[in-house]
Amino acid sequence: MSERSYTMKEAMLYSQRIAQLSKALWKAVEKDWQVWIKPYDLNINEHHILWISYHLEGATISEIAKFGVMHVSTAFNFSKKLEDRGLLSFSKRESDKRNTYVNVTAKGKLLLEDMYENYHDTPHSVIEGSVPMKELYGKFPEFLDVMAVIRNIYGDDFMEIFERSIKNIDETFAKNKDYQ
Amino acid sequence: MSERSYTMKEAMLYSQRIAQLSKALWKAVEKDWQVWIKPYDLNINEHHILWISYHLEGATISEIAKFGVMHVSTAFNFSKKLEDRGLLSFSKRESDKRNTYVNVTAKGKLLLEDMYENYHDTPHSVIEGSVPMKELYGKFPEFLDVMAVIRNIYGDDFMEIFERSIKNIDETFAKNKDYQ
Repeated sequence: MSERSYTMKEAMLYSQRIAQLSKALWKAVEKDWQVWIKPYDLNINEHHILWISYHLEGATISEIAKFGVMHVSTAFNFSKKLEDRGLLSFSKRESDKRNTYVNVTAKGKLLLEDMYENYHDTPHSVIEGSVPMKELYGKFPEFLDVMAVIRNIYGDDFMEIFERSIKNIDETFAKNKDYQ
Repeated sequence: MSERSYTMKEAMLYSQRIAQLSKALWKAVEKDWQVWIKPYDLNINEHHILWISYHLEGATISEIAKFGVMHVSTAFNFSKKLEDRGLLSFSKRESDKRNTYVNVTAKGKLLLEDMYENYHDTPHSVIEGSVPMKELYGKFPEFLDVMAVIRNIYGDDFMEIFERSIKNIDETFAKNKDYQ
């Protein structure tokens, strides 16, 4: 143990803390997500793939798998299903002929926009549970410590896609004043 | 929307942030956990039940379900399986005859202790990914903002069990100097 910068006790306390908190948080996020997308005949993986393709303005299967934290085969199979439903299309790019890019179709965009319009029709326990912090601090929490841990585990490219998707939502709202 | 203290854009940005971060964090925790417990022929639910019963020094099925963020039927069915393997026992308490309490048997305790002794035999990406913060701040992150959100979603009793389990690990290490 001498080469480690933490004791067994510190590791146990921390691993218990992070296991309980991340499980409880993810299960709440997952439940809100399932209730929201239920009327649209999509599962979480399918919606996540649509979401990623939309906000990255086209994504490769490996980008979807990485950013969606799912197996490449899961990303591929569900993308194919979404293509069959006319919500996604596959294409090559002139600048990059090796990779196949997944793009959201006009029909897919309409579906996503419809989902956002009905966002407040279902409860979002995670948003509601964060409102007291928004009122206290003037903004929703940023979870900088969680981001630092995730950057170390998943690498800079994961965080780069994360930032890109956040920036895209920001710009989408700047363009569509209806959603303000 | 007038009664809400946040805009649609704020809700979307925040819900994207928390969904991505909580999924990525939980998937990393889950993977480390699976690799660690694999040699012991336990799944995550089973180990989580053992873990909760051990650290709460006896727990009801509803406490296990609540704190383990699993359905009551899942908590009950896996507890029964662990009882069949001689790792848990069920009992009534004089002070509370309505509830059945789940306790870890001597055999179950030995198994858990064996697992802790072999904790460092498998990689723990979440611990390793947090070491730079430990070195920077002198301690592992506490995720106070995540805790605040979880307290609002799951209630004070969830946090009370959380604190009780953390306190119990602390005391276990104080008693067993081998693990220091």
